[in-house]
Amino acid sequence: MSQYIAPVKDMLFVLNNLIDKEPFNQHETFAEITPDLVEAILEEAARFANGELAPLNATGDREGCHFSEGVVTTPAGWQQAYRHYCENGWVGVALPESIGGQHLPKYLYSAINEMWLSANLAFILFQALTQGSADILLAKASREIQQKYLPKLVSGEWSCCMSLTESQAGSDLGQVRARAILHSDGRYRLVGQKIFITYGEHDLTDNILHLVLARIDGAPLGSKGLSLFIVPKILVNDDGSLGEPNEVLCTGIEHKTGLHGSPTCSISYGDKDGAVAELIGEANKGLEAMFILMNEARLSTGMQGVAIGELAYQRAFEYSHERLQGRTDHSKGAPVPIIQHPDVQRMILNLRSQTFALRALGYVIAARLDMSAVDSGKQRKHLGFVSLMTPIFKAFSTETGHRLAGTAIQVFGGMGFVEETEIAQLMRDSRVTTIYEGTTGIQANDLVFRKLVADKGEACRHWLNEVGVVAEQLGSLSRFAEEALALRYGIERAEQALASICEVDHLDVAALQSGAVSFLELLGTLASSWQMACVLITTDRYLAEGEDVEYHQNLVALARHYFAHHTPTIESFYQTFRQADNGIKAYVFDR
Amino acid sequence: MSQYIAPVKDMLFVLNNLIDKEPFNQHETFAEITPDLVEAILEEAARFANGELAPLNATGDREGCHFSEGVVTTPAGWQQAYRHYCENGWVGVALPESIGGQHLPKYLYSAINEMWLSANLAFILFQALTQGSADILLAKASREIQQKYLPKLVSGEWSCCMSLTESQAGSDLGQVRARAILHSDGRYRLVGQKIFITYGEHDLTDNILHLVLARIDGAPLGSKGLSLFIVPKILVNDDGSLGEPNEVLCTGIEHKTGLHGSPTCSISYGDKDGAVAELIGEANKGLEAMFILMNEARLSTGMQGVAIGELAYQRAFEYSHERLQGRTDHSKGAPVPIIQHPDVQRMILNLRSQTFALRALGYVIAARLDMSAVDSGKQRKHLGFVSLMTPIFKAFSTETGHRLAGTAIQVFGGMGFVEETEIAQLMRDSRVTTIYEGTTGIQANDLVFRKLVADKGEACRHWLNEVGVVAEQLGSLSRFAEEALALRYGIERAEQALASICEVDHLDVAALQSGAVSFLELLGTLASSWQMACVLITTDRYLAEGEDVEYHQNLVALARHYFAHHTPTIESFYQTFRQADNGIKAYVFDR
Repeated sequence: MSQYIAPVKDMLFVLNNLIDKEPFNQHETFAEITPDLVEAILEEAARFANGELAPLNATGDREGCHFSEGVVTTPAGWQQAYRHYCENGWVGVALPESIGGQHLPKYLYSAINEMWLSANLAFILFQALTQGSADILLAKASREIQQKYLPKLVSGEWSCCMSLTESQAGSDLGQVRARAILHSDGRYRLVGQKIFITYGEHDLTDNILHLVLARIDGAPLGSKGLSLFIVPKILVNDDGSLGEPNEVLCTGIEHKTGLHGSPTCSISYGDKDGAVAELIGEANKGLEAMFILMNEARLSTGMQGVAIGELAYQRAFEYSHERLQGRTDHSKGAPVPIIQHPDVQRMILNLRSQTFALRALGYVIAARLDMSAVDSGKQRKHLGFVSLMTPIFKAFSTETGHRLAGTAIQVFGGMGFVEETEIAQLMRDSRVTTIYEGTTGIQANDLVFRKLVADKGEACRHWLNEVGVVAEQLGSLSRFAEEALALRYGIERAEQALASICEVDHLDVAALQSGAVSFLELLGTLASSWQMACVLITTDRYLAEGEDVEYHQNLVALARHYFAHHTPTIESFYQTFRQADNGIKAYVFDR
Repeated sequence: MSQYIAPVKDMLFVLNNLIDKEPFNQHETFAEITPDLVEAILEEAARFANGELAPLNATGDREGCHFSEGVVTTPAGWQQAYRHYCENGWVGVALPESIGGQHLPKYLYSAINEMWLSANLAFILFQALTQGSADILLAKASREIQQKYLPKLVSGEWSCCMSLTESQAGSDLGQVRARAILHSDGRYRLVGQKIFITYGEHDLTDNILHLVLARIDGAPLGSKGLSLFIVPKILVNDDGSLGEPNEVLCTGIEHKTGLHGSPTCSISYGDKDGAVAELIGEANKGLEAMFILMNEARLSTGMQGVAIGELAYQRAFEYSHERLQGRTDHSKGAPVPIIQHPDVQRMILNLRSQTFALRALGYVIAARLDMSAVDSGKQRKHLGFVSLMTPIFKAFSTETGHRLAGTAIQVFGGMGFVEETEIAQLMRDSRVTTIYEGTTGIQANDLVFRKLVADKGEACRHWLNEVGVVAEQLGSLSRFAEEALALRYGIERAEQALASICEVDHLDVAALQSGAVSFLELLGTLASSWQMACVLITTDRYLAEGEDVEYHQNLVALARHYFAHHTPTIESFYQTFRQADNGIKAYVFDR
């Protein structure tokens, strides 16, 4: 039995209804993406996710990766799955056709990506790295480097890793100590110790391209002196063939609480003469280049929250139908499936409604990225939205996904604590998602200071206006008056909070930092409520036409549940935001 | 370095200030419990917790228990720690002197228990079983049985386990199938398969007394046909010496995601002729007897939430001082300990404030149990309070403790995901605390239907009046006007919710069940806010006298933080409670 069945119907509902396709009509490739084609692609991706990736999820967790003398071996089945993954052409699915990709729109890729992330998070982690690395190389690398590396990356013959963290430089990359020296051959020699490198070493590809942040000798201290290098594990000859090994040594893998199937490597570069490294983009602009990948990675990590939530929902839903426990008034003393108990129903709807809302939000963000590429007139607006939503989606979705893994365990009861049911794995795997690619605190800081203060809240106000239009539409449907009111109230609270950030003369930075996470959660809940309002408006149309009534009625109930159980937290987040430093400032934190 | 230092000062603050000692003044033993004695006892318990139990916490997690052919071996160090535990007389610390105990008041025992639970949860799990079993035997067993078993239990020579769950009977004990048949020798022969038996088999004691729920042949179906039996692993001769082995076989231990040091056993009783079993109390009144232990176990499990929260706080606090990352305006470009970042300060205060509030609540509940024993005039009122608070404290404290384990991991960042920092263990260990001894859903059901509907909200209203008095006292201190207002508002919301439960003609049972957990969380937050209000009132007195100013000012800041970051959730829980079945009732849960 597969533990995961890709929720193609729910995905299609979002893709077909909640994304505005109008901007794509004039665009040559995107206009060809018809609903039928979307469905066919999703079915194909689902076959791979359900049939090949999902069955390896628990076995990979149990077996884990192996390390011995610099060599990392992935769990049984990983190699074959990777081969099939490449053969099916999934690697380059969202990359440009010019480099051998299929150039699917990012909104469609989000759905495909979600499936893989649900089916086997530990396995598929490399995909966001490949995707983001290709974007960096396309944007920043010389033509020569592009030609040397991109085709093999897109075919999946080689993989990529993102080599940033050092033991003293985690969230604070300004402390990176890895050094690079220009060599007479025009390339650099790089020396440094990196940790926490996802898929930094493995046995899936012939070569691994390390994108490494390092400081060129003499460069400024801090994050403004970092440059980005490509350091292949095996040097590549001019004719594209593999040459000598580079000085890239995996010195160990972490023993993590989750994601056992994904090797998290410590890498030592340049133990002898320095690892041969080529500069990507300009010197000292490494962090900027890396942010191309990081933004991609943050959105993909946000999608991991959706993916974990979906898997948690499916597993809990199934179990709640199988497990007999307790009685109801109608069961004549016989035990009933626990799904008949309202508190279990509540947990199941918590699982599905939060996942559904965040899925919609994730796809919508991706669609705006697509729009920014095809609609130059509104590019700035679209990118402003994506930029605003990236930290919100990353942090709020992963926090939610991890909580939902806990909810699924709760549905399983005592059996959830036992590893053989394979549900505790979700809690363990998802635990890092609120940490890597920037912790929730880092995202909240990014939101408040880079995304709001920087543009004086313009992008946020644009978006709140958009939510206001939806609230108005919803309000015109009288049976959703209460939900429309809640949405309007949420907008108001967001506006008040925004004003206190953007319309003051002197920012109280410490107070804002104390309340940043609450504000992020406020906006995350509002964004989810917004999507659920769109669900209500859409289903109303289908129901008026009598189409697929049971499915759409369930979506109405789902959205109502969201408004009853999650939207009300906006008020408490607001109250906390406005008094967040009460206590913190006065407290003495000395040991 | 010990990972845990018992927070004796915080404990003493609660014990000396937040518990009304007046009712004990007339009581012979309890009146002797002076503050000096309390401190001496806590220091002694702390020495054992910090020095002997804490160092085994992580090693026990790594090694786990071993099972082979019916024999369970605990991790290295467990046997010695258990020996010292007994030698120090800790087993009977809260048991009556008549059976060899020390009869400390339960409020003091709560603090001692909290230390042990923090220091090594997996090790100490048997203690609540011993404590509760002794209570059952004292209340329900014949004098002969008491004399045979109690002394060895109190000395720690033998241990006890609680044998309830079967694979089809978890939350729903009415489905228990274990059978007992009266034998001509006046004892019973018991046959059945039990699972999830904590310390059901181990190598710490010569004998293990199993308290088993089973159905006497011919007894009614459901929970009203269950009887309680004592089934010793080794039969005990009339002279008290050990005789033949009974038919009690451990058939395996669970591979759990946490609590690896605590053996969770499957036990097969009576594989041949039936295990020799003695009836405790009346036939078919087994569940009632077991509830003596379960109430004790629920309060102790609630204390586990506090204990995990405290350990999480300490570990995160230490790490936040050690880890250098990021800059502040004053650090001149040098990295600072992360405790200087307001968002980290927020997390640290979340950890300490929630733990502090729930500790106070836990000790106060225990003190009311003590009062009920010495103050017969108010016994009913005190027991009403304890009975009301038991499900709230169990569920809310364990949910909070588990969340706080996650907060500590967040403070650790990427290092929190790596098992060598021993912080992920808190998440894994604590995950079951919201499940065992009755899930959060079960507690919420118990609260709403047994504790509120049953007495028409009387106990709850008594308590809310008490909180009202505190709100008034707090309001008289003008600098806490905002907190007093929030507390009054919380009382109002609780009263409104209570009215909708207790003052309606026709209960909408399904709606109430959908909202029961939200209501429980509302009351849990209010109860914590109540204790934090008491902290504010108390510290105000100390500060007026200029006593230990820094400590008490920090407590003021801590309580203010609670009111800013946690009390506001009352409103969202209320809003969810009042519309909890929106969506749930309309949703079709079919597969």
